[in-house]
Amino acid sequence: MLLLARVRRTILDRGLIPRGAGVVVGTSGGPDSTALLDVLGRLAAELDLRLVAVGVDHGLRDAAATELDLAAAHAARIRVPFERASVSVAPHGSVQAEARAARYAALRAVAESVGASHVAVGHTLDDQAETVVARILRGSGLRGLGGIDPARDDAVVRPLIDATRAEVLAYLAERSLPFVEDPSNRDARFERSRVRHEILPALVAEDAQAATHLAWLADEARAAHQALEALATVALADAMDGHGISVAVLRRSPEVVGLRALRRALGPDLGRAHLSVLSAWLQGQVDTAEVRLPGGRTARIASDRIIVTPLTRSGRDEEA
Amino acid sequence: MLLLARVRRTILDRGLIPRGAGVVVGTSGGPDSTALLDVLGRLAAELDLRLVAVGVDHGLRDAAATELDLAAAHAARIRVPFERASVSVAPHGSVQAEARAARYAALRAVAESVGASHVAVGHTLDDQAETVVARILRGSGLRGLGGIDPARDDAVVRPLIDATRAEVLAYLAERSLPFVEDPSNRDARFERSRVRHEILPALVAEDAQAATHLAWLADEARAAHQALEALATVALADAMDGHGISVAVLRRSPEVVGLRALRRALGPDLGRAHLSVLSAWLQGQVDTAEVRLPGGRTARIASDRIIVTPLTRSGRDEEA
Repeated sequence: MLLLARVRRTILDRGLIPRGAGVVVGTSGGPDSTALLDVLGRLAAELDLRLVAVGVDHGLRDAAATELDLAAAHAARIRVPFERASVSVAPHGSVQAEARAARYAALRAVAESVGASHVAVGHTLDDQAETVVARILRGSGLRGLGGIDPARDDAVVRPLIDATRAEVLAYLAERSLPFVEDPSNRDARFERSRVRHEILPALVAEDAQAATHLAWLADEARAAHQALEALATVALADAMDGHGISVAVLRRSPEVVGLRALRRALGPDLGRAHLSVLSAWLQGQVDTAEVRLPGGRTARIASDRIIVTPLTRSGRDEEA
Repeated sequence: MLLLARVRRTILDRGLIPRGAGVVVGTSGGPDSTALLDVLGRLAAELDLRLVAVGVDHGLRDAAATELDLAAAHAARIRVPFERASVSVAPHGSVQAEARAARYAALRAVAESVGASHVAVGHTLDDQAETVVARILRGSGLRGLGGIDPARDDAVVRPLIDATRAEVLAYLAERSLPFVEDPSNRDARFERSRVRHEILPALVAEDAQAATHLAWLADEARAAHQALEALATVALADAMDGHGISVAVLRRSPEVVGLRALRRALGPDLGRAHLSVLSAWLQGQVDTAEVRLPGGRTARIASDRIIVTPLTRSGRDEEA
């Protein structure tokens, strides 16, 4: 499928950007964002999008200004307004994470200043597949398996998420669009170079559609995770009363929903040992009647209610 | 963790085998089933299990009878009754799949004849991780991600599912238990040799806990899949009335549950195009009012009801 048709379909089928929206397009002069800007420029009239291209200079490399000149020239050629944003990245901690946070903050700030509801960035299906593999290896579970959200908070959108890197490069070649090796991805490439250059190719050698299958899996996992979280929110609200959290009410839901409801109530830092006790409680087995939680709290079960208590004298009194 | 402690924990935490159960243990003389039989033999008194070891001869290799002699001698040494079952595998189609089906049928048949409620077989955490990787590559989605069910139909159980192959081999070495290279797995090893010998080692090189993380993911995905299916069953029952399937009722559930309910009603062979139309219907967008289903049926939406019709004259009349 041609990139243009694929991006149109992604935007419409995934409901990424409504008609009439203002869209800030993050551009770096790299391949993904160059293709993204060009394709959105060609779709803007049809989809009624108002585009503003924004290049963020992180102040980390001297070449960045020149690379953004390339993006600015491209934007001018296709008659899309271009803005340059400079951010400073604190040199402590993870430079990559800080640069990423600063970049998104700058893009959102420009979006607000120009009245744009959406920020579009250039992650591809290959980025998605790599993210999913990295998350699986790290053990981040169903939630992590969701990978990159194509529409985070309904505001940061990834119209290239169903397009492969090969499709992006073919598009750039076909239209003779100049680009630099994506500077904003350089750190990320380094971090996950083995996933990109060794593991994913090995998976694709085993099944030619592996990257696509990983991306589909991300969509399915994200939808399942969000649905289970939504059900857990409802289940928890139903189960809470003045005395605690009713196990009987939680048991009306499947156990994974009940456990997610409890995780919501007890905090996200629960370990496998905590979840094992909570799971036993949901199954009506109360071998352990009290469990210490991270952050100095305890959860205990009594009279079919789970009660969370801070480990302070006042907390204990309050609840006694 | 010692294999014995790990298997005890697996049986108890996962509720694999209730106290007092009769258990047929599938044995082949291979490493996994040799360790399984030995560990279950040592846990039998504590967990009140009544064991019968069963060796299945598929009649495919001359060496099998000798290998089963090894299993029989082991069973005799630990005072577990041993039975030999012979099956014939039709030489057409996939020999591996046929042998597998014949093996499980034989194990279940012996279980019935000796009054055992459970059949225990020797899949390990590594088998689980390999299965998950193979399923991900094949694109089998959340359902396939569930991998090997440690307690299929509450009857076929895998007490080694939380133990690594390395733990099994260490146990065998420590106790000087003789075994043959697992003949029943030879075909499977051939089929997935690249996953076992190339892909999984590459994943483990990237993260030492990769196999464990894959196995955890299988547990989480299986639980999520089963919960969503259970919710879909309830949602479908609620939504069905004399006129069809009420979209308004399905919309009370998260969309993934509504879609699973529709898949239940319309058949498992739906493609992505079908699901896309059904998803639009659930979202209240009816650009396409009728869609052809596999097997010569159609689904159409009218007055907030989804109606499935066989593509026959009588079917059309009936529903007109």
